[in-house]
Amino acid sequence: MFGKKRNVGYNKSMKADVVIIGGGPAGLSAGIFACRAGLNVVLIEKLVAGGQASVPFKIANYPGFKEISGPDLAENLRSHAESAGLKIVYDEVVSLDKTKSGFSVSAKKESFQAKKVIIACGCETKTLNLDGEKELTGKGVSYCASCDGGFFKGMPVAVIGGGDTAIGDVDYLVKLASKVYLINRSEKFRAGERELARIKKYKNLEIITDATVKKLHGKDCLEKIDISVAGKKRQLNVKAIFVAIGAEPKLDFINFGIDTDRQGYIEVDSDMQTSEKNLFACGDIISKDFRQIVIACAEGAIAGNACVGVR
Amino acid sequence: MFGKKRNVGYNKSMKADVVIIGGGPAGLSAGIFACRAGLNVVLIEKLVAGGQASVPFKIANYPGFKEISGPDLAENLRSHAESAGLKIVYDEVVSLDKTKSGFSVSAKKESFQAKKVIIACGCETKTLNLDGEKELTGKGVSYCASCDGGFFKGMPVAVIGGGDTAIGDVDYLVKLASKVYLINRSEKFRAGERELARIKKYKNLEIITDATVKKLHGKDCLEKIDISVAGKKRQLNVKAIFVAIGAEPKLDFINFGIDTDRQGYIEVDSDMQTSEKNLFACGDIISKDFRQIVIACAEGAIAGNACVGVR
Repeated sequence: MFGKKRNVGYNKSMKADVVIIGGGPAGLSAGIFACRAGLNVVLIEKLVAGGQASVPFKIANYPGFKEISGPDLAENLRSHAESAGLKIVYDEVVSLDKTKSGFSVSAKKESFQAKKVIIACGCETKTLNLDGEKELTGKGVSYCASCDGGFFKGMPVAVIGGGDTAIGDVDYLVKLASKVYLINRSEKFRAGERELARIKKYKNLEIITDATVKKLHGKDCLEKIDISVAGKKRQLNVKAIFVAIGAEPKLDFINFGIDTDRQGYIEVDSDMQTSEKNLFACGDIISKDFRQIVIACAEGAIAGNACVGVR
Repeated sequence: MFGKKRNVGYNKSMKADVVIIGGGPAGLSAGIFACRAGLNVVLIEKLVAGGQASVPFKIANYPGFKEISGPDLAENLRSHAESAGLKIVYDEVVSLDKTKSGFSVSAKKESFQAKKVIIACGCETKTLNLDGEKELTGKGVSYCASCDGGFFKGMPVAVIGGGDTAIGDVDYLVKLASKVYLINRSEKFRAGERELARIKKYKNLEIITDATVKKLHGKDCLEKIDISVAGKKRQLNVKAIFVAIGAEPKLDFINFGIDTDRQGYIEVDSDMQTSEKNLFACGDIISKDFRQIVIACAEGAIAGNACVGVR
C-alpha cells in the first residue's frame, strides 16, 4: 500500500456502471447478466476467477455437467463472463465507500467509481489446519456435505463440528453413508440439546465428544483419521471427513453499515439488494441456508439483472 | 402403450420418496440433488425432458456455457439427472391428492405414492398464433427479453404487450436496441399510467397503441413485421419481437388448495415449500420476478435438498 499509487492513484479512478467485488460463481454470473443487459461492468478478484468453485477435485451437482473439475468449471464461468463483455481486474479490494453518485471501490492498485456495486466476495470456510488437509481436499476432505456426500455412498464418514451446519451434515449423510461419526471438540454442542436429542436416534451415527482430529492418513484419497478423545488416541476408518467448524464472513472493507444476520452474513431482498440502495450482494456472503454453486449463480443472475432495473 | 399397464395399472401404484412433476430445468435439478442425497426419486414429464429450456435456438446466459442450443442443454440436464439416479417416466399427470402418508400422483398410464412431491410443471407462455411464429422462435421471435435481448444489440426490436412484463422488457431493451417499439392491443395499458409515464421518457422508444401484429416476415431470421394500427397497415423493420402477452399457470390437477399469488403462481418459502407441508414447488410455476434457467435450477437444488430435510 506504499508509494506511487497511494500518492497519485486515488485521484484518477476508473468508472463503470457496475463494480462486482469477487470473482466466484456469483460474481461471474452477475457479470454475465449485467453485461448482456448492456451495462459496463468491472469485476475485481483478488486471487483466481472461479473462487471457491475452482478448488474441488470434482463437482457433480452443477446442473448440466455430470462431473466437472473445479478448475474446469471456474474456467468455463470466467471465459463465459469475459465473452459477455466482463472486464476482470486482479486486485484486492480494501475499501468500499458511498459517494454522491454511487460508490467508490478502492483496491490496492486502482480505484473504481460505480453507480451500483455487487458484493460477491464469498466466505472462507475454516479448515482444521492439519498436514495433508489441502492435498486431500476433494479426495476425502470436504467442507460441504451436500456437495460431496454423494461420492461416499455406503462408506463410513465423519462430520467435524458441533453447530447447525454439522447437524445438517449429519442429517444429510446418515442416509448415504454406512456409518457417520460426529466429532465435536467439547462436550457441549453449539447446535443445542434439542437438535442433539433428535439426531441421537440415527442408528448409524456415533457421536464422539471432547475429541479433535489429529492426523489424516492417505495419499491419493483419505483412508483413515487419528482422533484424540479426552486425551486418548483412537483411529477411525473413514473415507471422508466433512469439516463444519464454521466460516467467517469478512466485510470490514465496507466503510458504512449494512444489515447482516447474527453470523455476519449480508441480508438481501428478493432482488439481492442489501439494506443500502444500489448495493447488491450474492453468493456465499449472503444470509441463507444452503450454499451451492448453482444457487450462487442464480443469485448472481438476479443481482446482475437488478442492476439494469428501474424499480 | 396399450394392454397390460392400462388394464391393471391403477390398482398397483409405484412408491417413491419423492415424485417430481415436470422435467424442465427445475425438476431435473431437483432430481439431481434429491438423488445424490440418497432418495428414491421419480420424475414425471409429459413431453420432453428439458421443458421450455429445450426450445431456444441458442442460450447464452446459462453460466458455464458461453452458448448452447436449447436441445443440447436439455439433453445435458437430462443425462446428468439420470446418471445421478433419477427415474424419468414419460406420462401426463392428471391429479395430485393428499393421502395419509403423503401424496398420490395419478398420471394417465400409472399412479405414484410419495411422501414428498415437487411441482416443477412450468408455465406456458402465450403466443401470438401467427404463421411462421414457431419456426422463427429463437431466430427473432422471443418470449424472454432478458434471455435473448443480448443477441440484438444495436438493432431495432419490438415488445408486444401492455402489462408489467412488457414494461420490464422495454426497460431492459432500451439500453441494448437501437430502437424499441412497444405494441399494445388497446389504448390502455394493464401496467398502469404511472409506469407508462415513466417509460415515455426513453428517447429510443416508440409506443404504438390500438395495434396488433399481423404478419412476420423472414425465413432464416425475422426481418420485419406487419402491424395493424387502428385498422391501418404499417410495416416495422424490427429484427426481433419480444412477446409479453402473458402466461397461464395451470394447477387444476391439484385436488386441494395451496397458496398462490394473484396471477395464480405458487407461493413458496425459502425451502421452496408450498403452504402444504412436504409439497414443494420450483421453476416457472412459482411466484417470482425473474424467470431464468439458472434460477429454476437453483430452486430445484433447494427443493431437492429440502426433501432430505428434517426441519
